[in-house]
Amino acid sequence: MLKYFKVMKFIEKLDQACQQNNSLVCIGLDTDLGKIPKHLLNDEDPLFAFNRAIIDQTADLVCAYKPNMAFYEMHGIYGMESLMRTIEYIPKHIPVILDAKRGDIGNTAAAYAKAIFDVYKADATTVNPYLGPDSVLPFAEYRDKGVFVLCLTSNQGARVLQSHGVESGDIALYLKVVKYSLLWNQQYNNIGLVVGATKPQELKEIRSQVGNMPILIPGVGAQGGSVKDSVTAGADKNGLHAIINSSRAIIYADASENFARAARAAAQTLRDEINQYRKSSPPGVQS
Amino acid sequence: MLKYFKVMKFIEKLDQACQQNNSLVCIGLDTDLGKIPKHLLNDEDPLFAFNRAIIDQTADLVCAYKPNMAFYEMHGIYGMESLMRTIEYIPKHIPVILDAKRGDIGNTAAAYAKAIFDVYKADATTVNPYLGPDSVLPFAEYRDKGVFVLCLTSNQGARVLQSHGVESGDIALYLKVVKYSLLWNQQYNNIGLVVGATKPQELKEIRSQVGNMPILIPGVGAQGGSVKDSVTAGADKNGLHAIINSSRAIIYADASENFARAARAAAQTLRDEINQYRKSSPPGVQS
Repeated sequence: MLKYFKVMKFIEKLDQACQQNNSLVCIGLDTDLGKIPKHLLNDEDPLFAFNRAIIDQTADLVCAYKPNMAFYEMHGIYGMESLMRTIEYIPKHIPVILDAKRGDIGNTAAAYAKAIFDVYKADATTVNPYLGPDSVLPFAEYRDKGVFVLCLTSNQGARVLQSHGVESGDIALYLKVVKYSLLWNQQYNNIGLVVGATKPQELKEIRSQVGNMPILIPGVGAQGGSVKDSVTAGADKNGLHAIINSSRAIIYADASENFARAARAAAQTLRDEINQYRKSSPPGVQS
Repeated sequence: MLKYFKVMKFIEKLDQACQQNNSLVCIGLDTDLGKIPKHLLNDEDPLFAFNRAIIDQTADLVCAYKPNMAFYEMHGIYGMESLMRTIEYIPKHIPVILDAKRGDIGNTAAAYAKAIFDVYKADATTVNPYLGPDSVLPFAEYRDKGVFVLCLTSNQGARVLQSHGVESGDIALYLKVVKYSLLWNQQYNNIGLVVGATKPQELKEIRSQVGNMPILIPGVGAQGGSVKDSVTAGADKNGLHAIINSSRAIIYADASENFARAARAAAQTLRDEINQYRKSSPPGVQS
């Protein structure tokens, strides 16, 4: 009977959602007042009204949601209330990755971890490794939560620092991040990586080094990353643990009152395209 | 008459506060409910009550205040209200460096910049450069604000990634950050660096490369950095533009009802110690 009291670890929750919905799709909730349908602006909480409609239409199609902290923070107190409502509204069996990319040290990192995991009640978050282990481990101390370390990001300027070292024959900085993430994972068993869909060769190399560690892969959709490459290079040998995020291409698929159903159609298309390239499905899943 | 309509740039505000108070001291408002005097916990807004008392006692002794976002974020909506009240309360002639260490890309970075500069109305912030230029420049677009790029931080694990490259004879990553910050500064003229007081040799080397660029120097006080080294290595040739931050050693100098006066005494001692090592004072300042 003890199992009923066990806290579910992030990776278990992710695997269950992935299996239940037969999906590697993560929807990024980068909700922007300037981009949501105009009729929602009359709502008392437009950000939440938009998210609720998206969640209602897509909760059976995703393995995770990824609210992007910045889009709520930019509205001050009201935005943070919208974020809390959104996270509360997401069905409990779907993990929430709160994309915050925090990076600070010691007691400050612990304060950010408390905000993300205890106040906003996310299941996982993204962290920036620039400050070193003392900026990552206070998050990892939350053993039932997931910690995605920024490794090689999807943006154009990513390589400026993340590839530092290669010119002199050293390993690239992002591979050092991989190395340390593996070490941290040995101790904490809750570390993942963020690798952009726009860097498929490097994604493949990283997957070959990290076994079945979860990799959050942003950059398909609006940023132009290939879905096929993200799946074939990013998934583990069981066709799992690639969390393929799309934000704008799904949530802004349509700007009319039909936006939520359009988002559903876009999510379904992405899920099906991804599943076409997965080597194998988890046991017991209907394809 | 046009000058009355000119928006004051961060660096001008910093220089004026520095001159008026004859100080390079920045007080870090890392305000923690677990550390503030117990009698304040009965206040409706204990974080603000504490900060207000500290500000009242020290506003004539500092060149800047540096609230640490994490300590407010960990209290959710209430914490963010305390932060807004604190920033509003700081006298308008003292610059506020909101220490947030954000780092994200494109439209997300722009959303964070909007939060920090438009919503919380900070004069400057700290940013994490790991994601590259596209994570720093959306902040720099706020031309009248200051952007302090994390370079070599004060914590023990800083070198794990920040010194990457040196083993193979390349420059250390943090020196690449210096190089790019200089480039960005040529275009935007509002870039600064964060270099820990615990790394005085590197601080000296960095100062020699960046001219009179402002450097935010955390790590004296509780973290053990030397005040003398921070000033002699960190200040520019006019004895300026080293912003020497102390948080815990000042704000928690005393845990009794006398805390604010004790903070004043600690700030005054630090200011005087710093001024002892400054090569020269700005013109027109009484020492």
